[in-house]
Amino acid sequence: MPEQQSKGLIVWFTGLSGSGKTTICNAAFTELMARGIRTEMLDGDAVRKQLSRDLGFSKRDRDENIRRIGFVAEILSRHGVVVLVAAISPYRAVRDELRQSIGNFLEVYMDAPLSVCEERDPKGLYKRARAGEIAGFTGIDDPYEEPLAPEVACNTAQETIIESTGKVVAAVVGFLSQTNDAGTP
Amino acid sequence: MPEQQSKGLIVWFTGLSGSGKTTICNAAFTELMARGIRTEMLDGDAVRKQLSRDLGFSKRDRDENIRRIGFVAEILSRHGVVVLVAAISPYRAVRDELRQSIGNFLEVYMDAPLSVCEERDPKGLYKRARAGEIAGFTGIDDPYEEPLAPEVACNTAQETIIESTGKVVAAVVGFLSQTNDAGTP
Repeated sequence: MPEQQSKGLIVWFTGLSGSGKTTICNAAFTELMARGIRTEMLDGDAVRKQLSRDLGFSKRDRDENIRRIGFVAEILSRHGVVVLVAAISPYRAVRDELRQSIGNFLEVYMDAPLSVCEERDPKGLYKRARAGEIAGFTGIDDPYEEPLAPEVACNTAQETIIESTGKVVAAVVGFLSQTNDAGTP
Repeated sequence: MPEQQSKGLIVWFTGLSGSGKTTICNAAFTELMARGIRTEMLDGDAVRKQLSRDLGFSKRDRDENIRRIGFVAEILSRHGVVVLVAAISPYRAVRDELRQSIGNFLEVYMDAPLSVCEERDPKGLYKRARAGEIAGFTGIDDPYEEPLAPEVACNTAQETIIESTGKVVAAVVGFLSQTNDAGTP
C-alpha cells in the first residue's frame, strides 16, 4: 500500500488577463502528465466559482480568493502533486505570503505588455473595462504588481507557446530532480 | 517518476457537535497513516477558517461550506488520497449530492444521542445555545438529518474509541482492497 511519495510543488502563474496563463498552464499540464508526473491545475476563474462565489474584485476579496487557492494548492502539494495555478493574482504581497508559508513555490511571470494583452482580449473583458462596464480591472484601473524575482518569466508576446511551455516544464523537472536527489540518503 | 496511483476515497463523518467526529477522525487518521495509506484530514471548523470565513450558519451558508469542503476533498481523492472529513453537515440533501457527484464516498454516521452530546459539550456550545447566545444550533433549534444508509455507524455513547475507529479503518481498508482488486487486469 505505501507509495513512493515525491515532494509536491506549486507553480504559480501570475500575469494580466490575456497574458497566456491558461494557455501555457494547459500546455504544461499536458506535458507534465505525459511524463508521468502527478499534476493538478487550478484555474482562477474555475476555482472562484467553486470556492469564492461570495467574493468580488476588491483588493481584500482578491487577496482572500488567492489565499483560498493557496490553501487548496498547499494541501495537494503536501501529497506529492505538482499544482499549476493560473490566476491574475495582481498583488505582490499575497503572492510573497504564499511563497513564504508554502515553501515549494515556483512563480511564473507571464510577462506580456498590456497593449498585447488588450489586443488579444480573449474574453472581451478589456473592451468592457474600457467602456466602463467593469470597474477595478487589472491593468486598466487596478494595479498589476509584477514579480521582482520570478523563477520563470515568459514573454508571451515574443516567445512561442512551445518555448514558454518548455521553460516551465524545465523548471518543474529541475526542481523535482533536485528535491529527489536531496532526499536520497 | 510515475508512482503507483491508488484510488482515493472520501470518508465523510457526520453527526451532532460532541458526537465524536473529530476524536474518531483523528484516531482513524493516525491508524491509516501507520498503515502507509496516504491520508488527509479536513476538519469542518478548521476549513471554515480557511475557506469560508464569509459564511454563517444559515442553511444556505452551511450547504455552501459543505460544498467547498467537498470540492477540496474531491480533488485530493482524485490524487489517491483518503480524505477524512469531520463536519456536522446536518442536511441530508447536500451530503447525498456529494455522494452522487464524487463517487468514492463512505458516509460515517456518528450516532450519539443528543443528550449524550449535550452532556459532553466539549466546546461549551450547547450551554450557550440553551442560553440563547447561539441561534440555529444543530440539534437545539436547527435540524440534524441523520443518514438513511451510512456505510458505517458508530454509536459513540456505547462503543469505545478503539471500537469505533476499528469500524472506520476496516471500512476504508475494505474499500481500497476492493478497488485495487477491481483494477487488476
